[in-house]
Amino acid sequence: MNKSGANLTQTDERKSLHSGQKTSKPPFNSSVIRLFMDLQLSLDPGSGIPLHRQIYEEFRRLILSGEWGAGKKVPSSRELADLLDISRTTATSAYNQLLSEGYLKSIAGSGTYVSNELPDKLLFAGTKQEEKTETNGRRFHDHLSEFGKYLAAQGDFETEGRLMTGGSVSIEQAPLKKWRKLLMKHTEESSMLALEYSKDSGGYRPLREAIVEYLRRARGVRCDWEQVIIVSGSQQALDFIVRTHINRGDVAIVEDPCYFGAHRTLSACGAKLAPIAVDENGLCVDELEKMTSFKARLIYVTPSHQFPTGVVLPLPRRLKLLQWARDNNAVIVEDDYDSEFRYSGLPIPALSALDDSGITMYTGTFSKLIFPSLRLGYMVVPPDLVHTYCWAKRMADHNSPVIEQLALTDFITDGSLEHHIRRMRTYYDRKRQKLTQTIAKCFADKVKVVGENAGMHLTVRFPEEIHSDRLRELALSCGVPFRSTGANYLNLPWPQGEYVLGYANIDENVLSKSIEEFARQLQLT
Amino acid sequence: MNKSGANLTQTDERKSLHSGQKTSKPPFNSSVIRLFMDLQLSLDPGSGIPLHRQIYEEFRRLILSGEWGAGKKVPSSRELADLLDISRTTATSAYNQLLSEGYLKSIAGSGTYVSNELPDKLLFAGTKQEEKTETNGRRFHDHLSEFGKYLAAQGDFETEGRLMTGGSVSIEQAPLKKWRKLLMKHTEESSMLALEYSKDSGGYRPLREAIVEYLRRARGVRCDWEQVIIVSGSQQALDFIVRTHINRGDVAIVEDPCYFGAHRTLSACGAKLAPIAVDENGLCVDELEKMTSFKARLIYVTPSHQFPTGVVLPLPRRLKLLQWARDNNAVIVEDDYDSEFRYSGLPIPALSALDDSGITMYTGTFSKLIFPSLRLGYMVVPPDLVHTYCWAKRMADHNSPVIEQLALTDFITDGSLEHHIRRMRTYYDRKRQKLTQTIAKCFADKVKVVGENAGMHLTVRFPEEIHSDRLRELALSCGVPFRSTGANYLNLPWPQGEYVLGYANIDENVLSKSIEEFARQLQLT
Repeated sequence: MNKSGANLTQTDERKSLHSGQKTSKPPFNSSVIRLFMDLQLSLDPGSGIPLHRQIYEEFRRLILSGEWGAGKKVPSSRELADLLDISRTTATSAYNQLLSEGYLKSIAGSGTYVSNELPDKLLFAGTKQEEKTETNGRRFHDHLSEFGKYLAAQGDFETEGRLMTGGSVSIEQAPLKKWRKLLMKHTEESSMLALEYSKDSGGYRPLREAIVEYLRRARGVRCDWEQVIIVSGSQQALDFIVRTHINRGDVAIVEDPCYFGAHRTLSACGAKLAPIAVDENGLCVDELEKMTSFKARLIYVTPSHQFPTGVVLPLPRRLKLLQWARDNNAVIVEDDYDSEFRYSGLPIPALSALDDSGITMYTGTFSKLIFPSLRLGYMVVPPDLVHTYCWAKRMADHNSPVIEQLALTDFITDGSLEHHIRRMRTYYDRKRQKLTQTIAKCFADKVKVVGENAGMHLTVRFPEEIHSDRLRELALSCGVPFRSTGANYLNLPWPQGEYVLGYANIDENVLSKSIEEFARQLQLT
Repeated sequence: MNKSGANLTQTDERKSLHSGQKTSKPPFNSSVIRLFMDLQLSLDPGSGIPLHRQIYEEFRRLILSGEWGAGKKVPSSRELADLLDISRTTATSAYNQLLSEGYLKSIAGSGTYVSNELPDKLLFAGTKQEEKTETNGRRFHDHLSEFGKYLAAQGDFETEGRLMTGGSVSIEQAPLKKWRKLLMKHTEESSMLALEYSKDSGGYRPLREAIVEYLRRARGVRCDWEQVIIVSGSQQALDFIVRTHINRGDVAIVEDPCYFGAHRTLSACGAKLAPIAVDENGLCVDELEKMTSFKARLIYVTPSHQFPTGVVLPLPRRLKLLQWARDNNAVIVEDDYDSEFRYSGLPIPALSALDDSGITMYTGTFSKLIFPSLRLGYMVVPPDLVHTYCWAKRMADHNSPVIEQLALTDFITDGSLEHHIRRMRTYYDRKRQKLTQTIAKCFADKVKVVGENAGMHLTVRFPEEIHSDRLRELALSCGVPFRSTGANYLNLPWPQGEYVLGYANIDENVLSKSIEEFARQLQLT
């Protein structure tokens, strides 16, 4: 954005009474009246702005700009009314406002004056915008917290877009008709009248109960409705967990490679990251022993469909992970971001379904199931932490929007959610099959596909000898949205040639054609 | 909540295959089949749950409970199919899932076994729920961050309700018809298709532009659209500001008395509070000089309608406050929570309208203007901090819900917002007048009313000699929702007898009758 431009515009506009007009001087027309003090007061009776307001604005401008110095005598309200040919009431109204805000001061028996409590140095006149902007730039950096400095150092959102793709969902298939119907039902007055500030920041109870039933059926998680906290998407859940358990400087264990968003949230909150390698069976839990001396307080995992590799953490490792966390007083964050879409075998029960000691914070989202701009997700927390997490929500934004919560409750309880998931599973599966077939046909055994049995992305590995720049450029020119997993690797070296292909929102036939063209140009076979 | 109860239910239900059934043992009916291993496998063909899933669940239960030890041989899938009289496919499907998750292990030429990588000590058998819950209680407290401990120490939400009333709004008067119409319009597919994850976390650009225009007209604030960040209510804005500028241990200056929510957010984030007294002209800015050595990084103020006293900060003090903040490299938080409702004179321009050096963070909300469960507010930040605050939003919850942002844009640009504000100003003004008249009639000069010219609450001061317990009990029994301002005072002693009366959501005639009855029983006159 044009920073100095914004400031200059601000100054120019302050001089004009005509909002929306960009010239710095008011037009000299019939509504511009010359005052006895040799100062121009610009009034426009046709502007629709009440005259007393216009007078107030102009006096204010003249005082703040320093054109009228402290202690300067101004006409009485009667004189002003005569001079401007306006009613006495209008003049008095403007003056009362100026007096009540301290711009003017009335001295009994003497008259009305510009307040002398406004030292010249406090006023705007004579300061240069450009200098200030620069000073601010420096000052603000010094005056940001550690968290603020981390935010300030982030790249722009376009870079962000390139880093984060792969988890995108199909918008075309969103259940809009049904959702619209439910929103309409719940914007009826009868529901709206209940919409005082939500008394329970944890969320609308029937929604939390519906999620309990859904989690039991779909994810094997058994919990009490109070343990379910409604949040504005899983990013908020992650933020809450990190703030609630991590002091700056504490150690958090993450997968290597790791979901970029988690890594970033942890770093912003001052966590030191201890990465543990992921192999073809997920997190290498045996390496946890080496971490014992770090006294890690938190372990972030994606056990159902590791991001980005797509591998699944098997039972023995799950149990060892739980045991290690129990023994070392760490909490586990289970980010279950897309486990609803599993194409081979049954959905794998959540890690927290195995946890009977209450150390797992489970997070899930409806954004990937319904549509992304629906900012509703949930977390399941141990009974002992329900109170704390309700307060985390209250402190962050009081509560999530209630109409959406009402609509979502119906969407789950009338079976629409699970119907939609089944439909989308078939839909994504068709895409997935087509793409894996295309890749197999084009590259034979030269390209390995992993993590294709779940989720909305494939992870592909090209032979290391292909230069990554060439691969990237070619993919871009052919329209294949490969995204390097480089940014996901922390300690481990990036496996040259590993890319993620998010297919949810792209027509599989178009994408297949692009892959074929890409393969033809790459000439691997 | 019943913590141990929740855990016990979990254990009981794990033993039953029939979801929704609370007995711990499965009923012995035709669907319960005795297996050759002398272990009961409970299957219910009429349950609607696919048989392969039921088999999977039962095997899982038997393994996790320790009833089937590590290394125990299980029937082959063919044997299982024969024994249960089910298809081979069903048996294979269940076995594949159990194998893929690591519950079973297949040894070529030998058979299928319970995994021996599941050490007995990792399994559930023999652990007592009650003991664990207690251990967790202790452990979790140790493992909360400083922020988490602050949350855990908060009272229940009912206490919170009593502390926070006074800012409640009229639900009955909410512009529901219009809002519903706009929501319906924007849930049309054409709008919804644009609803990918919002690319700009700062919010929907036309909404930000509409707010720029609104702020210029209503609050005298001039800014660029990019400086407006859409947030989920002003609580979120406050949270962002504190996180972005305050490290634990930093000093923040607050008004004394202070809005309780601000005081709490600052404390939760580890700020040390330096309270400055508020007199009948607002914050005593001359006391700022005494604070210089503390190197305060932030000053939180409510200049348009101080909470709870209702006083307005006059211009000379505003300018001194800005100057002090500039000289001492502190940022100012201007919480403009209810300034739209001003009954005498013009709305007072915002403090940030006077700030040309970009050190003021301005926060406003639509919750008090439209309806409280609409979680949309905004903040205006200096140009240099736009990038940082967009990232604060991205890290907190990605973006605010888009449909509401689209609806709100129309609501502002078609004039509905300002029309509604004018209507509500008249509506609240009628209530306010009636109540101040009633109080004057009942108590004459014995009770002082302050801050009645703006907002949705009055502050009343009773003579100090009335015991506060008596006053509170009497108010409660007469149905007058006086709330003590005691919790708002930090260093200053609570002025005995100061109470806030929020009138937005209560019928003024009913409330007047209650006040009359209260006065009659109090017998002041």
